[in-house]
Amino acid sequence: MGSTTGQIFRVTTWGESHGGGVGVVVDGCPARLPLSLKEIQADLDRRRPGQSRITTQRDETDEAHILSGVFEGKTLGTPISIFVWNKDTKPEDYRDIKNAFRPSHADYTYQAKYGIRNWMGGGRASARETVGRVAAGAIARKLLKVRAKIEIIAYVKRVQTIEASVNPSKVKRADVERNIVRCPDKATAEKMIRLIEKIRKGGDSAGGIVELVARNVPVGLGEPVFDKLEADLAKALMSLPASKGFEIGSGLAGTYMLGSEHNDPFVKRQGRIRTRSNRSGGVQGGISNGEDIILRVAFKPTATIMKPQQTVDAKGRKVTLAARGRHDPCVLPRAVPMVEAMVALVLADHLLRQTTQKG
Amino acid sequence: MGSTTGQIFRVTTWGESHGGGVGVVVDGCPARLPLSLKEIQADLDRRRPGQSRITTQRDETDEAHILSGVFEGKTLGTPISIFVWNKDTKPEDYRDIKNAFRPSHADYTYQAKYGIRNWMGGGRASARETVGRVAAGAIARKLLKVRAKIEIIAYVKRVQTIEASVNPSKVKRADVERNIVRCPDKATAEKMIRLIEKIRKGGDSAGGIVELVARNVPVGLGEPVFDKLEADLAKALMSLPASKGFEIGSGLAGTYMLGSEHNDPFVKRQGRIRTRSNRSGGVQGGISNGEDIILRVAFKPTATIMKPQQTVDAKGRKVTLAARGRHDPCVLPRAVPMVEAMVALVLADHLLRQTTQKG
Amino acid sequence: MGSTTGQIFRVTTWGESHGGGVGVVVDGCPARLPLSLKEIQADLDRRRPGQSRITTQRDETDEAHILSGVFEGKTLGTPISIFVWNKDTKPEDYRDIKNAFRPSHADYTYQAKYGIRNWMGGGRASARETVGRVAAGAIARKLLKVRAKIEIIAYVKRVQTIEASVNPSKVKRADVERNIVRCPDKATAEKMIRLIEKIRKGGDSAGGIVELVARNVPVGLGEPVFDKLEADLAKALMSLPASKGFEIGSGLAGTYMLGSEHNDPFVKRQGRIRTRSNRSGGVQGGISNGEDIILRVAFKPTATIMKPQQTVDAKGRKVTLAARGRHDPCVLPRAVPMVEAMVALVLADHLLRQTTQKG
Amino acid sequence: MGSTTGQIFRVTTWGESHGGGVGVVVDGCPARLPLSLKEIQADLDRRRPGQSRITTQRDETDEAHILSGVFEGKTLGTPISIFVWNKDTKPEDYRDIKNAFRPSHADYTYQAKYGIRNWMGGGRASARETVGRVAAGAIARKLLKVRAKIEIIAYVKRVQTIEASVNPSKVKRADVERNIVRCPDKATAEKMIRLIEKIRKGGDSAGGIVELVARNVPVGLGEPVFDKLEADLAKALMSLPASKGFEIGSGLAGTYMLGSEHNDPFVKRQGRIRTRSNRSGGVQGGISNGEDIILRVAFKPTATIMKPQQTVDAKGRKVTLAARGRHDPCVLPRAVPMVEAMVALVLADHLLRQTTQKG
Repeated sequence: MGSTTGQIFRVTTWGESHGGGVGVVVDGCPARLPLSLKEIQADLDRRRPGQSRITTQRDETDEAHILSGVFEGKTLGTPISIFVWNKDTKPEDYRDIKNAFRPSHADYTYQAKYGIRNWMGGGRASARETVGRVAAGAIARKLLKVRAKIEIIAYVKRVQTIEASVNPSKVKRADVERNIVRCPDKATAEKMIRLIEKIRKGGDSAGGIVELVARNVPVGLGEPVFDKLEADLAKALMSLPASKGFEIGSGLAGTYMLGSEHNDPFVKRQGRIRTRSNRSGGVQGGISNGEDIILRVAFKPTATIMKPQQTVDAKGRKVTLAARGRHDPCVLPRAVPMVEAMVALVLADHLLRQTTQKG
Repeated sequence: MGSTTGQIFRVTTWGESHGGGVGVVVDGCPARLPLSLKEIQADLDRRRPGQSRITTQRDETDEAHILSGVFEGKTLGTPISIFVWNKDTKPEDYRDIKNAFRPSHADYTYQAKYGIRNWMGGGRASARETVGRVAAGAIARKLLKVRAKIEIIAYVKRVQTIEASVNPSKVKRADVERNIVRCPDKATAEKMIRLIEKIRKGGDSAGGIVELVARNVPVGLGEPVFDKLEADLAKALMSLPASKGFEIGSGLAGTYMLGSEHNDPFVKRQGRIRTRSNRSGGVQGGISNGEDIILRVAFKPTATIMKPQQTVDAKGRKVTLAARGRHDPCVLPRAVPMVEAMVALVLADHLLRQTTQKG
Repeated sequence: MGSTTGQIFRVTTWGESHGGGVGVVVDGCPARLPLSLKEIQADLDRRRPGQSRITTQRDETDEAHILSGVFEGKTLGTPISIFVWNKDTKPEDYRDIKNAFRPSHADYTYQAKYGIRNWMGGGRASARETVGRVAAGAIARKLLKVRAKIEIIAYVKRVQTIEASVNPSKVKRADVERNIVRCPDKATAEKMIRLIEKIRKGGDSAGGIVELVARNVPVGLGEPVFDKLEADLAKALMSLPASKGFEIGSGLAGTYMLGSEHNDPFVKRQGRIRTRSNRSGGVQGGISNGEDIILRVAFKPTATIMKPQQTVDAKGRKVTLAARGRHDPCVLPRAVPMVEAMVALVLADHLLRQTTQKG
Repeated sequence: MGSTTGQIFRVTTWGESHGGGVGVVVDGCPARLPLSLKEIQADLDRRRPGQSRITTQRDETDEAHILSGVFEGKTLGTPISIFVWNKDTKPEDYRDIKNAFRPSHADYTYQAKYGIRNWMGGGRASARETVGRVAAGAIARKLLKVRAKIEIIAYVKRVQTIEASVNPSKVKRADVERNIVRCPDKATAEKMIRLIEKIRKGGDSAGGIVELVARNVPVGLGEPVFDKLEADLAKALMSLPASKGFEIGSGLAGTYMLGSEHNDPFVKRQGRIRTRSNRSGGVQGGISNGEDIILRVAFKPTATIMKPQQTVDAKGRKVTLAARGRHDPCVLPRAVPMVEAMVALVLADHLLRQTTQKG
């Protein structure tokens, strides 16, 4: 269980890193949405391995196939099935770990939970699974754009200690995509790239922060109590591999403020009710208030490192591991499209849910 | 929508702060669990308003009534319905805000979403709604204790800048309950209380951090991909009023480390596979690994303050508000049982889900 | 589990026949629907025991209380909680069956499934549970009426061998309510009443057929594949106590026809596409086609009879039972509002689901 | 929406009759279930078109591919993705109906609901969609067999007026598969085949009844109130194309009996509590009682016929249609594996749900 998300815009991913392929079924996407393979492929290309010298060298073209749900360039209202073959699999790279548990990976927990695992790579816990999410996210993004001109942009905010200066309300996707680390602050981006390269040469890995802004979100998305917008966003983002923390608006920093400093006063601007500041991060009482949604996700340093590590095998015997598989020294550049995809899925779902509740 | 959570252990809360009452229906709790009203009431008493000089003075005894699902001291396997009357309601305190939108409250977003709201208090967005969550959480806690000896303890870790020193693997609930701020570090607790009193006198409010540990969690809880344990925990906790951030294990601090520093090496200890450190926070690949689950939730300073604030009314006209209602200058002491309840709901649900997947 | 139904218009019932009470929580009802207690009570009165000489003599006024979700006569968009006390309980009537399994009741299966049961009456399996369904159904009916002028009328079509002649497209609720058996064919109704009285005097019980028509259903309700409209209707109606069969449109009779006789030709009438006949029963490919929805539900004879019956107790020992409890000699008259309620729930849910899919 | 079923054993089908292919994702199947492609293919072969002279002549080999979730002959506990290419598509056969609405098909309702449809065949409403159901059903059947030795056998009970005599508690699958109409009563089967051939020659179609027995079902499957076992079975079966009615146990015939005749007395047999008769059809109070589950599904005559029919096009203009596409003159022989698959899905889901509720 657990491979489906969404109440209305329902997304089911499937696939292991070293099985036949990976894919997704999207059910509940409204009919007559213009949709092309090209739009989906564009996002998959931003996610795919081997795209730059600071990502894993596994060489997958990740070519998407749409098998159903689209007819003459438009959605049918029926499930959209998309799949991608696994091609550049190297199970032999993983033979060493067939019986060993890589530290801070899911090898041990999957083995303990299921009593079986596909040891040829990360299996279902591999970041390869996010192919399906990103493909579904591209559809969600299209829906959000067509219905409400919602724009979702994520970028690398910090790599380890190197933090970028970015204005969320102004940042453009073109600026994010201009460099391989996906940080729109050009000077900082170069430092980040150098840091990642240095860390990789040391056989190690780094973590950091991805920040995201969603603009033009209409007022009213999110449901009271358990399905608050920030709750669903938190779940979506904490479901990404390697994420360890989530913040919205003022986040942790807000806990140091007084209520009188933190509250966002309401004002009327251009005929609309707005807030003067945006420490709420675009959500109040679990419901979007029309301001930019701003959130951050913390990613730990990649668990796979080239340095030798002590661990144990299934029988508890000590073993020393050194990764031979191809891996990302820092997941953040490739996490950017994943973060966007997950936020798009949540917003698309709530946009459709909202249509059912209008009085 | 949005008032139900859980796949198997399904919890539905209902009620507005100033309607007839608040309550909860729990469906999916296994049969023959010993359950007494006393156990539920004990948690409600920790949540109730008016319990100390640093909480709101609204005087609710919050007496729970079990209407179904329990027979001769045991659960029947049928829905457990619990309700609590609203007694000390003062709608006249809210007449001023009938048409005004309190800053950083849900007044505006509810009005915009639904075109109607119960303006006598916070309505559905009020923290009063958590009565139902805490009652359900008490049932979940009992189930977790009986089935797996799981112990869940939350405490106030930081109020604004005052941070406690607590060892999560050793902390006891008695130490948490020993003072009114619910911080087990006695010396720091006193400082926190003084700070909250000072802030309240200034007509202001404070935020901070609640930390939680869950001990004896069996290996294997959590589902791959979207329903990872940390994802469901994040959702549950970000659904609490005033929460702005969530971390598990190393959290944000982990993003400053190298992979070689961050990874948790596996070792064999007392015949079991364990990790030497616990930066994973008890969850790997979305599945519990048997170590303590450790997480933190950031709460913003309470939105309701006594200081006058500028805002607008439904027509966008400027108004000045000063709270007359009773409120908490700092939500953290009362948030402690809420955080515990939400974690209990997630763990109970995953404990039951796990029974379906054993090969 | 199993006490919640609906994807959007979500209904959760709770309560045992001999616990504190019974009730329902409706989440997902759109805001600003005018709703009065009177409307709900009217349907409960049609369902309540003791309403006539051919129903059970248990004397419950079944007075409903709305505890949340309604404010100044309109729905808030938040969960609507309704409850009804259990008053006229006679647990002593059931002491004989504390350890015995009544034939064709749920005593044995509940005991086997849960290892515990509330033996004071039917517990959760009692028809008393339908109080919550009927209350929720009244809300759904109101929504369907306000939104789409949908009208739902059920009536007793057959009691044992006595069958009424009714024109579904013309029948009026007033005609149904004119007599205590709820059959709009007046002459037949009298025969039915006499039959039921005779059977009751013999200490026995009878079954039959309830037929329902839903008029003004818009085109487009229902979802492909698993959530077809007739599938959800079948589930809803087969979930009622004592139901053994379901038909839509031509039903079983249609299986004797040739395709050329059975097909409903499309025609244009008053500017709309219609079908000349309606053997489809208002649904094609799982989606409503704008014609009257016509369906039938078969109810078995009530399991509780006054005649002595052989059965066994929990230890498998033979016992002879004769009902002492009050019971309905024929469930059909009281099943009429239940059937209407269930159909209303399904249509309300699909009406709201449909809003999410419009291209 | 609507392409997913099941709470734990979750099945999502996708695909149109004339798109790239059709398939299914099964999430929630427990790990380590032995599973081979051969087992799935065997059921698909019983469903596939072109298998005999009384089924459609569309020639699809329906070769299944398992893309994920199975590793070294066992399930992984992760989603199992299976797909089948569409090969023998003849869109040109459908060009005539591009703008016309075939009587008693889903052309009109899909067009009205979505404003678009894949007119090259039945699209999502085609019986071709059941490929995914049958593949998932094969997995469910395997699970039921391994876990509980449950055996599910369906067969053609009646074609139009020709009814077979079959003993549900004795019937064997081999007897069902011995002839092309899938009726285990050999003499009647021949009559049925002759009738179907005659009707086909007349350009017409026939309906009838499929009966099913599930043996060795453990006591305790099914949930109170809305998710009663017979309710979920009814929904599953009424979701099959062309089904118009559902009965369990005594069904419609039971409505003519008195309670004293209809009730199933409990007895003790071989140390177990059993019922002497089985008018309940293996389910009491929505929960299986350990007796054989016996149910029947009514299928209407196939809507596609060769005889010319009057209908209208999208603009309401009269048109005359005569099918050119290949079609089944009687769906029943191919419906047999579909009925088995749907029942297997429901039982597998409830078998797993039951594990969560044991006290």
